[in-house]
Formats: sequence, structure tokens, C-alpha cells
Amino acid sequence: MPQLSQLAGVLPASPIRKLVPYAEAAKRKGTKVYHLNIGQPDIETPAVSLEAIHNLPDKVLEYTHSAGIENYRRRLADFYNRRNLGVDYTNIIVTTGGSEALLFGFLAICNAGDQVIVPEPFYANYNSFAMEAGVEIVPIKSFIENGFALPAIAEFEKKITPKTRAILICNPNNPTGYLYSKEEIEQLRELVIKHDLYLLSDEVYSDFCYDGREHYSVLNLKGVDNNVIMFDSVSKRYSMCGVRAGALISRNCGVLDAVLRMGQARLCAPYIAQVAANAAIDTPQSYFDDVKKEYIARRNCVVEALQKMDGVVCPCPGGAFYAVAKLPIDNADKFAQWLLEEFEYEGETVMVAPATGFYYNPKDCPQDEIRIAYVLKIEDLQKAMKILEIALGEYNAKRG
Amino acid sequence: MPQLSQLAGVLPASPIRKLVPYAEAAKRKGTKVYHLNIGQPDIETPAVSLEAIHNLPDKVLEYTHSAGIENYRRRLADFYNRRNLGVDYTNIIVTTGGSEALLFGFLAICNAGDQVIVPEPFYANYNSFAMEAGVEIVPIKSFIENGFALPAIAEFEKKITPKTRAILICNPNNPTGYLYSKEEIEQLRELVIKHDLYLLSDEVYSDFCYDGREHYSVLNLKGVDNNVIMFDSVSKRYSMCGVRAGALISRNCGVLDAVLRMGQARLCAPYIAQVAANAAIDTPQSYFDDVKKEYIARRNCVVEALQKMDGVVCPCPGGAFYAVAKLPIDNADKFAQWLLEEFEYEGETVMVAPATGFYYNPKDCPQDEIRIAYVLKIEDLQKAMKILEIALGEYNAKRG
Ligand SMILES: Cc1ncc(COP(=O)(O)O)c(C=O)c1O
Ligand SMILES: Cc1ncc(COP(=O)(O)O)c(C=O)c1O
Repeated sequence: MPQLSQLAGVLPASPIRKLVPYAEAAKRKGTKVYHLNIGQPDIETPAVSLEAIHNLPDKVLEYTHSAGIENYRRRLADFYNRRNLGVDYTNIIVTTGGSEALLFGFLAICNAGDQVIVPEPFYANYNSFAMEAGVEIVPIKSFIENGFALPAIAEFEKKITPKTRAILICNPNNPTGYLYSKEEIEQLRELVIKHDLYLLSDEVYSDFCYDGREHYSVLNLKGVDNNVIMFDSVSKRYSMCGVRAGALISRNCGVLDAVLRMGQARLCAPYIAQVAANAAIDTPQSYFDDVKKEYIARRNCVVEALQKMDGVVCPCPGGAFYAVAKLPIDNADKFAQWLLEEFEYEGETVMVAPATGFYYNPKDCPQDEIRIAYVLKIEDLQKAMKILEIALGEYNAKRG
Repeated sequence: MPQLSQLAGVLPASPIRKLVPYAEAAKRKGTKVYHLNIGQPDIETPAVSLEAIHNLPDKVLEYTHSAGIENYRRRLADFYNRRNLGVDYTNIIVTTGGSEALLFGFLAICNAGDQVIVPEPFYANYNSFAMEAGVEIVPIKSFIENGFALPAIAEFEKKITPKTRAILICNPNNPTGYLYSKEEIEQLRELVIKHDLYLLSDEVYSDFCYDGREHYSVLNLKGVDNNVIMFDSVSKRYSMCGVRAGALISRNCGVLDAVLRMGQARLCAPYIAQVAANAAIDTPQSYFDDVKKEYIARRNCVVEALQKMDGVVCPCPGGAFYAVAKLPIDNADKFAQWLLEEFEYEGETVMVAPATGFYYNPKDCPQDEIRIAYVLKIEDLQKAMKILEIALGEYNAKRG
């Protein structure tokens, strides 16, 4: 039997995957499971997009331009420019989700063995994209004590080697919900200038910033046009994860040209995704206002409940729809499994993501943190929080 | 300014790309251009698929399972089994076009520097996917004199090294239209058993086989379950290139597991593509009968016209919708450019793809071959052939 690649041997499975059989078993027993573990919003896709799909006029569903439909790119540039990002449509390559943009970004700037520094905990799939591109992720810890703020620049300096090609941040952050400040982004600007690095920013949650705070994009930075690559997606913005439209945005012509050639190889991003995303640009502001109001209410519900629980630490996140909480438990992986396998309260339980899955080395990180995605209705979140509180007591009583 | 990757420096642009400005200039002058250069069929997408899109019931367009929607995978397995391919739905991973399946296939079985042997001329994007995966393509020439049949197994043997991981064929072939026989596929079976290699088969044109000949899939081979990976796509089958649904099919669990993990990293293939492709499985047989009849008429129109032209050699292809012709010219790249830049006949011209773009080394290959895609209506193909004949005379007269 012919061998597999080394990649095949090391590529991680989705961190939630090992819990899925337990969740399925729980459901088979009749237990209701509140899913706090996935970033799949329950918000409705904008009506304008659904209509555009329902009214698709074409008789032949043809390939589009490899960089994306020009009209969509132009309207997307206008969208960014209403947020003062200063983007020309030629700075945009439309991709199959933000996921493809991330892979293309790594491939455009890194050789095999090159390093990209990422504050951890981080979105677990960065590991996979990096491995696929032969890139080494160099993690740098952020801490729950200061709400997972940007690690000190001195810590970044310590990690920089001749193989370092880029710093990658996710803003607002998945899994922590941390919203980087303008000052933090500007510190990174100095750092990438000093060391001639790329600054990669995953801004797929940029629409989800709370408490009156504004999102500060790396595209707002001046004098680093050749350093900056932004990754975007319509998945979360318009709750249309399944359509698969994203974008890579840069003012570096070399990057754009390389990414276009990768785009030509795979022919095009999905046509209907581009139609839906293009239509979505006309989503009324009231949609976003409503969504934001809803997420703030959900966040407050979850975070306030968690903060009231004995021994739980949960900084209030400034963005995205995730929170990381430190629980008074021995081991989050065991606890998450126990919730599904052994626990139920009035026939219900919760599924949470152990935060170990978001660290580079699941052994060398806090073992007592979980990520909660607040993508359920308030009533469900309230119930889920109650269940979690009761579970914590029971779990510790059993072990105590 | 930070450096780009080596990949960025070598990734080829689409081979047609350098002709596009000339085509655009010709159109601006008012010249009508018949596009014989691209594999974008003009056939209508099946009505069942368009209806499924128009009737999409969802309010939230969610991520699907990373391996594809189970119901679609099951129905696709049934589809394959009606062709006696012996596929279980768990053998199928749904991908974003055949393109993604090819990249995932390379990544699952090759380490950086490993080699894949491919008969040339070959689909140009294999080069890009190989480069992205760090794989070296090792070409092995096929020749117009025998219609681009499979090179002798002895020639493959000569190219096999310890770094060889796989043989990749495209059946029926793009660009040559050659349909490999059962005997040829069985020779490859012996070869991959002998050298413990993977046999990769790109079968995205399997629905386009003519003259009563049947497609023989690598999945039909016995005793090589762990060696065989098939790449499929709905792009050409249902003329829905823009939706982006493909599949990787294998019975090798290690390959499937690695590809699933790549699939999990990028979350899912486009949901609406899967809906359209799933609906397409109910396309009536009459659709395929009509399409095949149309392509046979087109092929005959083009090939007969070419064979009648002075000094032109054009083997009649058994499948796909391409033909490669050898022309009595000095240089196909120059000729293709001249057609757009300097020539017109009654206000019209043709755009063709120089075959050099389909060889590994464009300098070390026949300079006088072009690929013609017969994806236009018969009347247009007739006009295009007339234009080509007149152009050949004029081109050679000017140079003679
Ligand atoms: C931080 C982050 N980046 C990128 C993605 C990729 O999303 P998509 O490929 O759907 O655009 C996700 C999805 O959850 C994410 O959380
Ligand atoms: C030989 C061959 N393989 C694969 C593809 C990829 O097609 P898709 O990604 O649309 O499935 C094409 C498209 O033209 C092709 O000609």
C-alpha cells in the first residue's frame, strides 16, 4: 500500500470532532443538547441575498473571472470605502470563503519551513492551512487575566527569527472575542516595519464590535501597503457561512498577482456565492443594528451568568460571538465529554469547546478553559448557563 | 518590502492569459471573435438544478458537513453505482470543484519534492496544484501521430524514481480528447502495483465518450483499492462550472481521512453547489443523449474541417470536447496572437489555445499545435473553421 504524505499524518482533526460521537449518543438517549461549541450563527441570511438566489437569471452557470466578478469586486470596494479602508477593487481577490484566502495568503508569502507568529489561543484551522502550505506556526501566549490582549511587543521580538515571514492576528478574535485596539494594531505596524514582515489580519468578525468601539483594520495603517494582507468573509457578516465567499485584500501587487494565479488554477470562486454576497451589499443598516443588538444581549447574558458562577473567570469580550471562560475544573476536555456522556439536568445538557483545541500545543496551555459561542437565542442561552452552573457543582462534587 | 514565496515567483499564469489583451483589442476594433480557446460549455444547466436553486428553502445558509451533505453523497454513490463503479458514500468527499479535489489529492499522498508522472500534453493547472503542494510533475510525452495514446509502459518505467508517488491521467483527456481504453488503464494497474504507486485519474469528462465507446474508470480496477484516487466534477457533466462542486473518490481510508481533515479546515464545499448537484442527479437521460449528440456533431464538424485543410493533422478524439491539431505554421503562439492582432475575415476571427501551454516545458514540445474546444454551436464552428482555413493561407503567404 503506497504511503501517505507526512501532512496526512499530522493534519489535526477538527478539535470538536472527538466530542461529536458523545453528543450524538446523548441525543439518542433523548437528551437535548445546547450547542455552545460551534460558530454557526442562527441569524437569518439577509432577504436581499435569498431573493437574488431565488431569482438567479442564468440558463448556464458559468465560471466567473478568477479574481471574482468585477461588479462584485467594485461594490465590495465601495463597501470597504464606506468604512474608510481605502480599497481599490483591484486590491480584492474574491475567494472561496475566508478559508481559501488564508491558504492563498500563506502560499504567497511563505516557503516551506518559514514561520508565522500567531497569538494564542487562535482559530484552530490556522494550523491546518499552515501545514498545507508547509508553514510553521509560532504561537505566542495571550492570557485570560488581561482579557487576551495583544502580547507585549517584547514577546514578539523574542520569537522573531530569520525564518519569520509574518505576524497573523484575528481581530476581533476567535476564540477569545478580544477586539484589538488601534494602539495595539499600530504597535504591530512598527514591528513589521522594523523586521520587514507581513502583517496578516483575519477580520471575518469585523462587523461584530460592541460597546461603541470601532473596528480598526490593518488596512487603516499608513505606510505599510506592501506589508498588509487582510482576510475577509461574508460567512459571519451576513450569516451565509454555506455560500463560501471570502476575499483577500492587499495593496501589495506581488501578493495580488501570485494570489490571482492561484485563483486561476482553481478557476473561480462559486458564482452563486458571489451573486448572494453582491446582493448582500444592499442589506439595510437596520439588519446590522438588529444583529448587533441581539449579540450584545446574548454576550451579556452569557458573560454575566458566567461571572456570577463560583470560581469562574470570564473577561467580557469586545467583539465576535465567542467568550473564553476559565472554569473551576481539573480538565476541560474531560469536563466537556462528561457533560455529554454522564450529565443531564431535566433532560438537557450543553456542548462546549475545550479551549485546548485553540492552543498550538494542547498540553502546554491552560487545561481549565472553554470557548462558548453565543449563537443561540437568549432563552436557550439562559437555560444553557443554568445547566452549566449545575453541572459545575455536580462535576466537582463527584470528584471532590 | 517583505519577500514573496518562491511559489509566487514560479506559479504559471493561465496559458491563455497573455492572449486576452489581444482578444479585447480585437473586440474593441469591432471584430467578432469566436472563442475556441476555453472549456466553458454553452450547454444549458439542467432545469432540475436551476429549479432547486430558485426554490432554495433555507432562511439561514449554513455550513454543511465537511465531507459534503450526506444525502448528496449517498445519491452520488448511487449515481456512480449505476455506472458499476462500486462506490460507497463514505468513499466520497465532496469538494469545491474538481480543482480542490486535485489539490487535496496531491497533499494527501506527496511530500515536498515527491514526483507525479503525467502524460503530456496535460491540463495546465496540474502544474499549479502540484507547485502549491510542493510536488514535481514529471511529464512523459504522448504524440499526435497515434492520437495521443498512452505512452508505452516502458517509458513510464524509465521515469520512475524513489521519489515517484503517483501516475496521473486525465480520461478522457484535456487537451487531446483522447479516451484511454480498458487495456491502457489495466496496463497502468500493473505498473502501480509493481512500483507501489498511486493511480490518480481525473475523470471530469467521463460523460463525454463518443462512437459507442464506454468510459473505463480507475474505480473499475480490481485489487488496487488502496492505490486508486478518482477526481470528479459536476462542472462539465451538467454544464454548471460556476457552482463549484467536485469530488474525490477513493477506497483508501488513509487518503479519505486525510482529505476529510483538509475539508474540515476549510469547513465545507459550497452549500448551494451541493443542492444544485444533488438535484442534477435527477437529470433525465434525454439531457445526456442530446448533449452527446450535439458534441459528436460539433466534433465531427471541427475535425472533418481540419482534416480537409492543407497540411493540418487532427486525430479524431474519442471523448471530452477538445481536439489538438497540428498546423502548417512556424509557431502556434505567434499564430494565435496574429489571429487576434492582425487578421480578420469579414469582420471576424478566432481565438485558439496554443498547445505549448499544455506541455511541461513550452520550449521542448511541438510548436505547431493548437487546442480547439468545440463548445460553440455548429453554425459558429463552421464559420470558425472557414476563418481558420483562410487565416492559415494568409499567414503562410505573408511569411512565405
Ligand atoms: C477566525 C476565523 N477565520 C476564518 C474563518 C473561515 O470562515 P469562512 O471560510 O467561512 O469564511 C472562520 C470561521 O469560523 C473563523 O472563525
Ligand atoms: C481536465 C480538467 N480537470 C479538472 C478541471 C477542473 O474543473 P472544476 O474545478 O470546475 O471541477 C478541469 C476544468 O476545466 C479540467 O479540464
